[in-house]
Amino acid sequence: MDKIPYKTYLSENEIPSSWYNMRADMKRKPAPMLNPGTLQPMTAKELDKVFCEELIRQELDETTPYIPIPEEIRSFYQMFRPSPLIRAYFLEQALGTPAEIYYKFEGNNTSGSHKLNSAVAQAYYAKKQGLKGVTTETGAGQWGTALSMACAFFHLDCKVFMVKCSYEQKPFRREVMRTYGADVTPSPSMTTEVGRSINAAHPGTTGSLGCAISEAVEAAVTREGYRYVLGSVLNQVLLHQSIIGLETHLALKKLGVKPDVIVGCAGGGSNLGGLIAPFMGEKLRGEADYRIIAVEPASCPSFTRGKYAYDFCDTGRVCPLQKMYTLGHDFIPSPNHAGGLRYHGMSSTLSELYAQGLMEAAAVEQTRVFEAAREFARTEGILPAPESAHAIRVAVDEALRCKEQNRKERIVFGLTGTGYFDMVAYQKFNDGQMSDYIPTDEDLAASFAKLPKID
Amino acid sequence: MDKIPYKTYLSENEIPSSWYNMRADMKRKPAPMLNPGTLQPMTAKELDKVFCEELIRQELDETTPYIPIPEEIRSFYQMFRPSPLIRAYFLEQALGTPAEIYYKFEGNNTSGSHKLNSAVAQAYYAKKQGLKGVTTETGAGQWGTALSMACAFFHLDCKVFMVKCSYEQKPFRREVMRTYGADVTPSPSMTTEVGRSINAAHPGTTGSLGCAISEAVEAAVTREGYRYVLGSVLNQVLLHQSIIGLETHLALKKLGVKPDVIVGCAGGGSNLGGLIAPFMGEKLRGEADYRIIAVEPASCPSFTRGKYAYDFCDTGRVCPLQKMYTLGHDFIPSPNHAGGLRYHGMSSTLSELYAQGLMEAAAVEQTRVFEAAREFARTEGILPAPESAHAIRVAVDEALRCKEQNRKERIVFGLTGTGYFDMVAYQKFNDGQMSDYIPTDEDLAASFAKLPKID
Repeated sequence: MDKIPYKTYLSENEIPSSWYNMRADMKRKPAPMLNPGTLQPMTAKELDKVFCEELIRQELDETTPYIPIPEEIRSFYQMFRPSPLIRAYFLEQALGTPAEIYYKFEGNNTSGSHKLNSAVAQAYYAKKQGLKGVTTETGAGQWGTALSMACAFFHLDCKVFMVKCSYEQKPFRREVMRTYGADVTPSPSMTTEVGRSINAAHPGTTGSLGCAISEAVEAAVTREGYRYVLGSVLNQVLLHQSIIGLETHLALKKLGVKPDVIVGCAGGGSNLGGLIAPFMGEKLRGEADYRIIAVEPASCPSFTRGKYAYDFCDTGRVCPLQKMYTLGHDFIPSPNHAGGLRYHGMSSTLSELYAQGLMEAAAVEQTRVFEAAREFARTEGILPAPESAHAIRVAVDEALRCKEQNRKERIVFGLTGTGYFDMVAYQKFNDGQMSDYIPTDEDLAASFAKLPKID
Repeated sequence: MDKIPYKTYLSENEIPSSWYNMRADMKRKPAPMLNPGTLQPMTAKELDKVFCEELIRQELDETTPYIPIPEEIRSFYQMFRPSPLIRAYFLEQALGTPAEIYYKFEGNNTSGSHKLNSAVAQAYYAKKQGLKGVTTETGAGQWGTALSMACAFFHLDCKVFMVKCSYEQKPFRREVMRTYGADVTPSPSMTTEVGRSINAAHPGTTGSLGCAISEAVEAAVTREGYRYVLGSVLNQVLLHQSIIGLETHLALKKLGVKPDVIVGCAGGGSNLGGLIAPFMGEKLRGEADYRIIAVEPASCPSFTRGKYAYDFCDTGRVCPLQKMYTLGHDFIPSPNHAGGLRYHGMSSTLSELYAQGLMEAAAVEQTRVFEAAREFARTEGILPAPESAHAIRVAVDEALRCKEQNRKERIVFGLTGTGYFDMVAYQKFNDGQMSDYIPTDEDLAASFAKLPKID
């Protein structure tokens, strides 16, 4: 093998032809979604007022390891995939580390992130089912943008509820979505019953993903020909995002590189679940071992300080119950939290893998995250999204540990997206005005007290 | 040949090892820069208070066709090059055209445009000369961002004068530059003599590139260890940007595609001059023929309505005289003009090529430009910069002509960058509030009256 290139691109015919479903290789499966009324596992029939049919099948499928990617989706993928696997030569040099650092960069598309991988799949299945449109929520705005792009492509209507504090911090995100033809409403809004009641209970709230989900679900089920789609947390989303990991796995194999540490940021878990999928598969099947690290904000620490328990997926409690690491469905990160990764819970699949000790988690404070973001931008040239910079922070910390221990480990991390719409947060950081906030034990205890009591 | 892929990436070792200098193949060379005092051609010695030494050599070199790219620059190029050549299958389908459309996409880097190609070269030579820093101007902000990135990489100080109306429309551009460590001042400012006098003569002016250039030059020549660098217009910049065309030429050759029409937007000419370089070289040497179309805003129509005459490169008249298509050094586009491409003149090399009839020019109104931008975003997935969308507009018009004439021509255009920082303009368009402005003949006559009288 010659010198490893800066960027490794697979060819378009190497785009995986199937997604990989980690659950098929898990001996102990994630706990099932429960109907909050009966406390029985949700059936496909119960879900079909909310979700598209094919997506429900994917959501509930715990046994099929490989699910073929329809040709129309692969064709759309060719617009922006394969994404590059980049060797961070310049960052390694700046750190003076003997470690090799690689990152899979998902930001080279207009949505600015990996979210488009699942958005196109969900829009495709909605169109195929003959629907008129879809509704969704968005936090930092990447998912809403991705879904707007996918809906424009398939000529579907798209209604987005955007967490109010992001809506205000990121007016330009809204315009990108509008350019793609989407309706964007700040959440909680006065356009839904649940929005009105959340506004009444928490006057002046800056919103949360949990609220926005409740509103989007209501907007879907009260409209003929609409379904709700979600950009993270769900099994189907992790399934679609496995394309990230599959490409990474293949590219590393072609380079002859076996990673030691794999790092991803985690909000609801879509990017992390996608990045690690085939590696975790090898772990589950006993074929290989890797350290896998989930990185979350210290201000929204589901894995590191949450409870592994059944909880509602949304603040309005209109969604099914999931067993997951959760901070409580009422938890809202402090308003000084600048990035995404603000969901109160975590993918049930990742939660179960974490509970089984198959991965680690780390919580990092945002000022240290932005320090890593700035160093990365200046050395590697890419201005990262604050979310992605959580992974950079821990990848850099691991590389510095390798330096201290003089170890030549291979570190791979997911660079999920770019920060071009996060300049309000960067400005705060550039001006020295950024602060950290870590919820107190009392904050969390109050939130945990509202968890539903189930066995 | 199999089906042409969506995206063609050259490998990193196919990044050209030399830039190509069109002037070497021109029988009639561009007119020389003149010293405004003596009206004699500027010498290297006269230029060296303003520019870096090696860049002056490149500026004045009319005979060397290939100039080697230093290894440090090629290494930086590997961060974001080769850039993809994309077959616009989805756009072709939406237009129902028999034409094949290709675009060279230069937006996949944090500066969001092709400007980084020259920024890294200029920063490298400044560093090599032992300078402390550089000064520059920026309009839409892409050049300033690119230079900030390059200066961060080479640890050079970077002072940017940003045209006031862009500074106000694009606060986030400023933050990106600050994140990379640059100083950003709105122009005309009160920090330079020329800025103060422009402010006094035109109270409330929203600025122009011409003003900002004057300020940046003053800031360089009045500081020890600083030089001025420019992102367009100059021969050296076209030279560096030839990397776009060289990669395009090689990729098309590998695909077995010979273009019929090559389209690029033109403000000062950096992208266009770079894109067409090797193709124009073939034309100049009589080896091949192509239609080459420069696209400019109807609100700033240097080629289509300007005079081919000697003029100052800047409003403050501190720079040398260039023979070029110019609207007059006092010309400032109407404030409703939303994008870049607002320079009053045009590269002297491109001007001479246009005067010799080797290329065509078209002027387009911005509402039609944004219509093309939106259609492109929705079909091809990339939200283009308004500047780049000028080229899209004409490429689409050409493809529609092919449809009418049932001709299977091959159209190649330069997609210079992304529009993520142009959402104020998109918002205006989305809200139906965008208007067009075409300068009247009287406006232009008044401006032409101020041209210096030279033979």
